[in-house]
Amino acid sequence: VIGEHSRVAAELLRRLHRGPRPLLLVNVWDVASALVIERADFPAIATSSSAIATSLGYPDGEVISATEMLDVVGRIASRLQVPLTADMEAGYGGSAEAVSQLASRLIEVGAVGLNLEDGTDPDGRLVDPEAAVANIEAVREAGASLGVPLVINARTDAFLVLTDDPREALSEALSRLARYRDAGADCLFPIGARDAATIKVLVAELGFPINILAGPGAPTIGELEDLGVARVSLGGGPHRAALATLERIAEELRYAGAYDSLVGALTHADLDELVSRSWR
Amino acid sequence: VIGEHSRVAAELLRRLHRGPRPLLLVNVWDVASALVIERADFPAIATSSSAIATSLGYPDGEVISATEMLDVVGRIASRLQVPLTADMEAGYGGSAEAVSQLASRLIEVGAVGLNLEDGTDPDGRLVDPEAAVANIEAVREAGASLGVPLVINARTDAFLVLTDDPREALSEALSRLARYRDAGADCLFPIGARDAATIKVLVAELGFPINILAGPGAPTIGELEDLGVARVSLGGGPHRAALATLERIAEELRYAGAYDSLVGALTHADLDELVSRSWR
Repeated sequence: VIGEHSRVAAELLRRLHRGPRPLLLVNVWDVASALVIERADFPAIATSSSAIATSLGYPDGEVISATEMLDVVGRIASRLQVPLTADMEAGYGGSAEAVSQLASRLIEVGAVGLNLEDGTDPDGRLVDPEAAVANIEAVREAGASLGVPLVINARTDAFLVLTDDPREALSEALSRLARYRDAGADCLFPIGARDAATIKVLVAELGFPINILAGPGAPTIGELEDLGVARVSLGGGPHRAALATLERIAEELRYAGAYDSLVGALTHADLDELVSRSWR
Repeated sequence: VIGEHSRVAAELLRRLHRGPRPLLLVNVWDVASALVIERADFPAIATSSSAIATSLGYPDGEVISATEMLDVVGRIASRLQVPLTADMEAGYGGSAEAVSQLASRLIEVGAVGLNLEDGTDPDGRLVDPEAAVANIEAVREAGASLGVPLVINARTDAFLVLTDDPREALSEALSRLARYRDAGADCLFPIGARDAATIKVLVAELGFPINILAGPGAPTIGELEDLGVARVSLGGGPHRAALATLERIAEELRYAGAYDSLVGALTHADLDELVSRSWR
């Protein structure tokens, strides 16, 4: 029954990448943040791996273990009515076999989609795209064997690594993302690509759903929609904005002895009701 | 050696209740939030039990287990240089023996102070103050036997429960807090007392450090200092303000297609550096 519920949720999440409007994702890091976004009527929820890692005290970049990451993802998934897609970095372990196991565990904890990045080696160089292709195929197969067709958002770090030569970065991203698309990804994520001209080429050349990481300085949602972008996410930005609010509260308390930065906070009763409602 | 470190930290936290200025506490809920407050140069850190519980998906009020609460407290304590005091609600278990064990576990995970409330029974009535006295004595003895003199912030819920009759609430709070003081508490916490006249009576009658839960509408820090308040905390307010920021980000994204609410967020590099620095 859980398998059937997840299968339906995965198909719903997949369809949201093919709708008339871009799928908007406000990335969360714990149950409370996920419930706030669900209540704001978003049709799906995404985690941010950097937000989850740092909230638990780990630097970004697979310092956290897969088990701890899955614990948080599962805790969130168990409380949501809408589909959850989890940022699983580069798969926590390298081999396609490890990634296959990760995909099975992800399904077990109730997520129905994931981000999977090609990423970099210890020297900061992009890893062989063949490894990323094998990982995508491993997820696809694990999902098929468990009857939950996980929605794969395949990310390339080309724009993060090849910063000296935007033309080379675009070329590398196009080459990699085409392979990830052909390996069975559902959406392609060129993290670091933000200008309209680059996005336009990516959409046109790949002819496939594209995820753009947005934030201050990025094209508006209307502009991204006009460019044909299928999915927009905010990464760790919301978590870091929430922490900036905390910092402002602390500074105001310390230097002005006042509490204006706390005005507009959720009330205790409101948050408690939000959490209690989803408590089983 | 850990015992000696904690003993010194407990004494430091205790002294901060007897300084010329009130001890200001911005309550946190995870490692990232704690590191943000520590970096803002606060001399001690406090947790909020409601913030920790709701971030993990539990309603407030001891629905979370002591073990899960201690896991979060320990995770935070392991990363801080400054003393950590943890909100332990009514002690998660009722008996003084259970509270004694809780105090020992709290010391083991690295906290050096705690909030302990008298609280209410399932019918919403204040519990017998004798039980709260026994709990305070149990914490005092556990701390002494382990060589870590835990700083006890003894809270009464009188003002939360006796809302119909402010005069009765004040009388009940004074009676209870005097007993908690005499049982070995280090600071007295009349949660719900916020007006200057009431605070003035509490400080004068008890002649002992008082903790005020502040926020919008409360006297300023300068006013609380003039009233003789020793300690000011913000409870779950900062966490709920951070969630309100998340809600604003989501609403702006959805209805305006824009990202202005993300302006001023901590940068990825800044947060990663903050976490990495404390990573051992």
